[in-house]
Amino acid sequence: MPLDLVIANGTVATASDVFEADIGIRDGRIVQIGGEMKDAARVIDATGRYVLPGGIDSHVHIAQPSGPGIEMADGFDSATRSAAFGGNTMVMPFCLQERGQSLAAAFRDYIAQSEGQAHVDLGFHLIVTDPTPAVLGQELPALIEEGHSSVKVFMTYEALRLDDAGILATMDVARRHDARVMVHCENEDVIAFLAQRAVEAGELGPRSHAATRPVAAEREATHRALTLAEVVDVPIVIVHVSNGAAMDEIARARMRGVTITAETCPQYLMLTEDDLSRENWEGAKFVCSPPPRDRREQENCWRGLQNGLFDLFSSDHCPFRYEDEKGKRNAEGLRNFRHIPNGIPGVETRLPILFSEGVMKGRIDLPRFVALTATNHAKTYGLYPRKGTIAVGCDADIAIWDPQARRTIRHADLHDAADYTPYEGLEVQGWPETVLLRGRPVIEGGKMVAEARGEVVRRR
Amino acid sequence: MPLDLVIANGTVATASDVFEADIGIRDGRIVQIGGEMKDAARVIDATGRYVLPGGIDSHVHIAQPSGPGIEMADGFDSATRSAAFGGNTMVMPFCLQERGQSLAAAFRDYIAQSEGQAHVDLGFHLIVTDPTPAVLGQELPALIEEGHSSVKVFMTYEALRLDDAGILATMDVARRHDARVMVHCENEDVIAFLAQRAVEAGELGPRSHAATRPVAAEREATHRALTLAEVVDVPIVIVHVSNGAAMDEIARARMRGVTITAETCPQYLMLTEDDLSRENWEGAKFVCSPPPRDRREQENCWRGLQNGLFDLFSSDHCPFRYEDEKGKRNAEGLRNFRHIPNGIPGVETRLPILFSEGVMKGRIDLPRFVALTATNHAKTYGLYPRKGTIAVGCDADIAIWDPQARRTIRHADLHDAADYTPYEGLEVQGWPETVLLRGRPVIEGGKMVAEARGEVVRRR
Amino acid sequence: MPLDLVIANGTVATASDVFEADIGIRDGRIVQIGGEMKDAARVIDATGRYVLPGGIDSHVHIAQPSGPGIEMADGFDSATRSAAFGGNTMVMPFCLQERGQSLAAAFRDYIAQSEGQAHVDLGFHLIVTDPTPAVLGQELPALIEEGHSSVKVFMTYEALRLDDAGILATMDVARRHDARVMVHCENEDVIAFLAQRAVEAGELGPRSHAATRPVAAEREATHRALTLAEVVDVPIVIVHVSNGAAMDEIARARMRGVTITAETCPQYLMLTEDDLSRENWEGAKFVCSPPPRDRREQENCWRGLQNGLFDLFSSDHCPFRYEDEKGKRNAEGLRNFRHIPNGIPGVETRLPILFSEGVMKGRIDLPRFVALTATNHAKTYGLYPRKGTIAVGCDADIAIWDPQARRTIRHADLHDAADYTPYEGLEVQGWPETVLLRGRPVIEGGKMVAEARGEVVRRR
Amino acid sequence: MPLDLVIANGTVATASDVFEADIGIRDGRIVQIGGEMKDAARVIDATGRYVLPGGIDSHVHIAQPSGPGIEMADGFDSATRSAAFGGNTMVMPFCLQERGQSLAAAFRDYIAQSEGQAHVDLGFHLIVTDPTPAVLGQELPALIEEGHSSVKVFMTYEALRLDDAGILATMDVARRHDARVMVHCENEDVIAFLAQRAVEAGELGPRSHAATRPVAAEREATHRALTLAEVVDVPIVIVHVSNGAAMDEIARARMRGVTITAETCPQYLMLTEDDLSRENWEGAKFVCSPPPRDRREQENCWRGLQNGLFDLFSSDHCPFRYEDEKGKRNAEGLRNFRHIPNGIPGVETRLPILFSEGVMKGRIDLPRFVALTATNHAKTYGLYPRKGTIAVGCDADIAIWDPQARRTIRHADLHDAADYTPYEGLEVQGWPETVLLRGRPVIEGGKMVAEARGEVVRRR
Repeated sequence: MPLDLVIANGTVATASDVFEADIGIRDGRIVQIGGEMKDAARVIDATGRYVLPGGIDSHVHIAQPSGPGIEMADGFDSATRSAAFGGNTMVMPFCLQERGQSLAAAFRDYIAQSEGQAHVDLGFHLIVTDPTPAVLGQELPALIEEGHSSVKVFMTYEALRLDDAGILATMDVARRHDARVMVHCENEDVIAFLAQRAVEAGELGPRSHAATRPVAAEREATHRALTLAEVVDVPIVIVHVSNGAAMDEIARARMRGVTITAETCPQYLMLTEDDLSRENWEGAKFVCSPPPRDRREQENCWRGLQNGLFDLFSSDHCPFRYEDEKGKRNAEGLRNFRHIPNGIPGVETRLPILFSEGVMKGRIDLPRFVALTATNHAKTYGLYPRKGTIAVGCDADIAIWDPQARRTIRHADLHDAADYTPYEGLEVQGWPETVLLRGRPVIEGGKMVAEARGEVVRRR
Repeated sequence: MPLDLVIANGTVATASDVFEADIGIRDGRIVQIGGEMKDAARVIDATGRYVLPGGIDSHVHIAQPSGPGIEMADGFDSATRSAAFGGNTMVMPFCLQERGQSLAAAFRDYIAQSEGQAHVDLGFHLIVTDPTPAVLGQELPALIEEGHSSVKVFMTYEALRLDDAGILATMDVARRHDARVMVHCENEDVIAFLAQRAVEAGELGPRSHAATRPVAAEREATHRALTLAEVVDVPIVIVHVSNGAAMDEIARARMRGVTITAETCPQYLMLTEDDLSRENWEGAKFVCSPPPRDRREQENCWRGLQNGLFDLFSSDHCPFRYEDEKGKRNAEGLRNFRHIPNGIPGVETRLPILFSEGVMKGRIDLPRFVALTATNHAKTYGLYPRKGTIAVGCDADIAIWDPQARRTIRHADLHDAADYTPYEGLEVQGWPETVLLRGRPVIEGGKMVAEARGEVVRRR
Repeated sequence: MPLDLVIANGTVATASDVFEADIGIRDGRIVQIGGEMKDAARVIDATGRYVLPGGIDSHVHIAQPSGPGIEMADGFDSATRSAAFGGNTMVMPFCLQERGQSLAAAFRDYIAQSEGQAHVDLGFHLIVTDPTPAVLGQELPALIEEGHSSVKVFMTYEALRLDDAGILATMDVARRHDARVMVHCENEDVIAFLAQRAVEAGELGPRSHAATRPVAAEREATHRALTLAEVVDVPIVIVHVSNGAAMDEIARARMRGVTITAETCPQYLMLTEDDLSRENWEGAKFVCSPPPRDRREQENCWRGLQNGLFDLFSSDHCPFRYEDEKGKRNAEGLRNFRHIPNGIPGVETRLPILFSEGVMKGRIDLPRFVALTATNHAKTYGLYPRKGTIAVGCDADIAIWDPQARRTIRHADLHDAADYTPYEGLEVQGWPETVLLRGRPVIEGGKMVAEARGEVVRRR
Repeated sequence: MPLDLVIANGTVATASDVFEADIGIRDGRIVQIGGEMKDAARVIDATGRYVLPGGIDSHVHIAQPSGPGIEMADGFDSATRSAAFGGNTMVMPFCLQERGQSLAAAFRDYIAQSEGQAHVDLGFHLIVTDPTPAVLGQELPALIEEGHSSVKVFMTYEALRLDDAGILATMDVARRHDARVMVHCENEDVIAFLAQRAVEAGELGPRSHAATRPVAAEREATHRALTLAEVVDVPIVIVHVSNGAAMDEIARARMRGVTITAETCPQYLMLTEDDLSRENWEGAKFVCSPPPRDRREQENCWRGLQNGLFDLFSSDHCPFRYEDEKGKRNAEGLRNFRHIPNGIPGVETRLPILFSEGVMKGRIDLPRFVALTATNHAKTYGLYPRKGTIAVGCDADIAIWDPQARRTIRHADLHDAADYTPYEGLEVQGWPETVLLRGRPVIEGGKMVAEARGEVVRRR
């Protein structure tokens, strides 16, 4: 049978291996690695290139309600376009149940919004904010059984947080239905207490965002979430870990036998709380939670990427326009860090940053890059073996990287709908030049070359 | 000036020192140590005896509402009588604000109840269960300023617990008014979750009390409480620590700079969860929170007493009659560990147990005994230098111990109003034979020899 | 070009992936995965089988001098035969420099001994016991440059141990020449001290072997070795870790930034110190160092295999005949644990034990099995990408496992030259039925089907 | 009976208590505290003063051989004169056995040298550098039985160090004879390795002293020493701890049940490694081992003084003249940090520094000051209850402090025989104005007022 496409002469990497081989693709799947590849409809020459699994970014926020009058910059079109340009073939945004709302209804809304808009494949995590008997007893199990098998709970944000009872109940559903539970670990009451102190002291600038969300608040919530998972006896995903103290909690819990998937993000490698002090309210551009810490914590996060403490490297893409959302808060009378929407864009820069700072600078090798950016996401969230690797039988979701390409990151060159990048001016080496989704090019020659073919993937 | 009383020929111990000296007392205070003691109105010969500061038991429950239809066994008369027979000259019970109630009003009630009833001196800790603006803004500061300078908060018990915001707010008041905050550290939601599981599984016996309050629930709450104190920057008292994991949290927090007073109790040295499995519902006699653990944790607690991790050794006396309260729960239809009142008696046995198992068995020395049972209580709760030691100028609160006395603990010989002791049959060496409150005998020759002269002490 | 061999219809696993695909082999290498495989000289049907990388056992002792009058049971023929039957395609024995000896000369001797004897491929680790300037300045660098790029040092055994200065100097050579340093971590002086005590107390049985090599001795040496590597700034391999305390040292050092490869062995999962107490001197069969510990430490070791703390699972095969070597020590006058040769056989049982207890019992998945038994060995010791995985371009070192095969381990069925197995009677599920070395069968149909084709592999 | 001396109107402090009382002294002992004091031969008015136990400095080096051509600045006269001016009534120097020498003979030499020279009482620690059977079997036990019941071993300094076997053997003697073992914890081989590197790199200045004795070298040796004590089951004294990592080792070992006395010194609170970088070879003035670290470690050491991790605060007085010993090394051809004698003076400044920085700045209270500087030394080294406190029956070793006195530390005002102080220019509040040794003034009115009456004290 003829092949639809061959990627020839490249260096292929999986989470385990690096090897030279041609890749044969048919009907959207990888069918052959190495050997003679005859009668291919098309051949892409990948000489001098790395042929990697397409990135899976399992932590992005798209079109999510963010408070009265605040709009997230990206809808599904721009977010997934940006993702594709950044070497991704799948993103996993969130379906947010707002309090009082049906989770199932919320899910239908997100599905409807995303339909026909996605340039990469999709999977939705279900944020539970209102764990009613109907939600936990019926809606959530039904959605999990349909293949939407990951739940997220928040320990912070007044509008989203669950108390421990709610988390335990949600975890228990996840345990019974074998779903993953992601937890945002920061102690809301601590933050509210410190924020109140800061407001009373008149310390209203963006820097106070970091000061009022200290490492202690994250360490506490991390230890608590891990204990809840230990009590329920369920695996847990700790998202966006920013510091060594929280990492220590994870290491300790693993030695107690808790099964943990741990994630960090580019902002904890590349930014610090000093960025929140930039003049003219520019610090607002770096407001995200947990906040970036300091150089020592960056080093700790790198160590966790190197030594296996971290399993996932995600963007936590959560875009707000500086002019409209983060900036209008700059108006007189609203100069208050409490009003700056939390989150920064990053879906397009995640992979180039880790590739350049990690692989090219020798901190991690290619298999570790692949594991952190694709394979472990697929395995954690039930996409494997269909997604996340280059192996016979898998979806041909592939990014072809040019390790020699040098780029300076400029928001002008990016494709999200925010109006800035926190990494403006950063020089990187290595860029994904071709991206294939299920065997067909999405990005090629610096352009998007396909319709929005992304689908919602059902997961185990 | 003539002395009222001389204690002659004894071996005196403080938290630092052991020495042979006569003690001269006048007007209820120690006025002279060593030297010639002329014209004493009375001389007690303490040859072969230890002359120690009277015990201060800073953790006892007296006459505290404990749920519908449940009555605590001891009022102030019996509890303090029992305390005095056990070598104590002061106890610190709790004033419980019930939700919806004024803290000040509650305090007046306890004062009224205790008046004329106490055989030893008293100090009340204020339990805040309803941290309203009135309570935190006015009542609590006023009570602290009047000398009732310790607050207790609970992280467990549905009727008592505060959430983190409530704890932070209460700690902040304590910080501003220099009061101590005691925290009962167990995660209520974890316990409720596990209790629900146990009930569903039909595991209703007393043993489930222990199983549903695991070390993890205590460790979690301990870490959280310590983090809250770290955030507020206030000293904290962690009461009734039962295990090594919670001790590790304390050690870690001390290295972070948190000022911590740590307490353990006889039940964590002498009992185990196996006691809760005793037949015929006898396990109910050992139901207290946190529950006793196992032999290894007993050893951990001993280490903490030896190596300085623990500062306080208290009874957590919380008496319920087995026949009436713990036992009637034994009736068909009520055989459920959730209905057993939490708490065990122990104010009279605390000191003999530590003296016998600790001092006489060589695990700790006399100064450590004095520190753990008297001096550190006085220093922690603002009683020092009036109470808690034997030094010139202090209240002559003194217990004279016979280190040769051998006793078998029998509830029949004790003086509380419960109907059992968890230590029935335990053989001890060493017993307090004479107890002086402010220079006058309370216990002598195995009898109570004085009126109820106890007073409420105002503290710093 | 025609293929020499196709393995058809199997389930293939790498350290990352599991997939269904045929494997095409030519000239001893894997050339094609999936796709049409025409004109194959031979096809092995692997329906219902797992097609895994051949095991690499990077920790085996063969023909090594073990003290006056003591002979190791296995030479290269029997050891590698046993290895092949156990699913391995490569073993890494040691070249022992005896004190006063030239390392290069020792190496030549081992090479000579092994020539024409090996049924699987070989790589030698160089044990340095006499780090003279000649050895460290010339011999060792030359051997490393020739591709024998791993060194082992001992902190125990009077005849082998280096002091810290010797270890530092050896590590420094390894750092400069990019070789791996393996360390046996037990504090010899502690062991000698306790052994002297045991001998004086007349406690001479095999159990004293365990009692005199306590966890503390291993924990201490582990921390020290890790510190030496930290100071030199060189990666380190900690071999045969037996307990949670040593694991904690590894975790702590990783957080300090030390690059560590950590190994454990079947004996720490399956045996305990109680085995050393078996009657009639049978305990001698379980004498190895470090000794097996207890159930709790077994559980800790399993956790380390699951959570990534361990990278390598090796046998530490070190065979002595019970009748001749371990047993003759049983003669009157020699009943002394100090005279029992240290070590147990295990090269043939390593993989079946982990497959059965790990994979089949659900503790680890297939990729983790492959990583622990093959890939990580290849990556650690410079064999990768030639060895250790199934990918295009690699040596076709493959073991085909029948996951349904049930076997009871009996020494009668094994192929080493010892006269017992510590795992006698253990029931396992899963057995390697076919083993290919560089594309040609070594084991097939329960028989060895090839000459001794094993070669010494040059490593990076 | 008339009193010889009364100290009237002062504020007295012990390791536990602070109280206002007159102190009555007769025959060199404290005989009365409080009460009427008639017929005193002399009264010292201590109004507004603190009456504290005389300082015991259990870690000073006097007249100790320090290598070829190097002479320690202080003999017994000047060292003890300096100690007395600094508020001390006892110092504990070392008797150094040089290799090949009899320990007993060395001891006789030190006794002879000190005779008639000491202005404060003395106790000698026995440094074992050559643990021969004669030394461990006879000399050391005999000296311990005579009351010289503390031994010191070194893990660093080529001329002094013991290997682990030597330490274990020495500890075992200490265990059998109930002596204390002090350990200097730094890994000599690590230091030699790094020093060699530094020399090769031409980094010869004093700063390299700190760089080649990193925290890792101290942490390693601390963990090892604690393990050796754990194995032998003997209490241990860890001297001059300089950093948080070593403190963590101590905390961990205490939780394992090891009995540890831990010491730190003023240099770890007040100096940093930056002091070793001072220009013109001035850095040599700060060369001591372990070296001072950084601000963060200073903070860690303060925490250890506050939270009970440390028991002892000593000077590690080890004086060399800058001009002659540390300075002459400055000559061309000798500009090498390896030739700078290790040690700094400090016996006179220890107490004022802790009093001023600790007590007056509110970091520790008076009882903690007394415990750290006197009582715990007495208890650790078998001097208690004769020394180390103010209680009836004790030696009247007393220092009367003026808490209002303000002084600037200048070497010109000190009394040792070095030619500099590392604390030149430091402003302190609080100074000991009167010092009594066994009831008789040594220092009064800024002058030495007595003959050299110091005696060697026999200890338990």
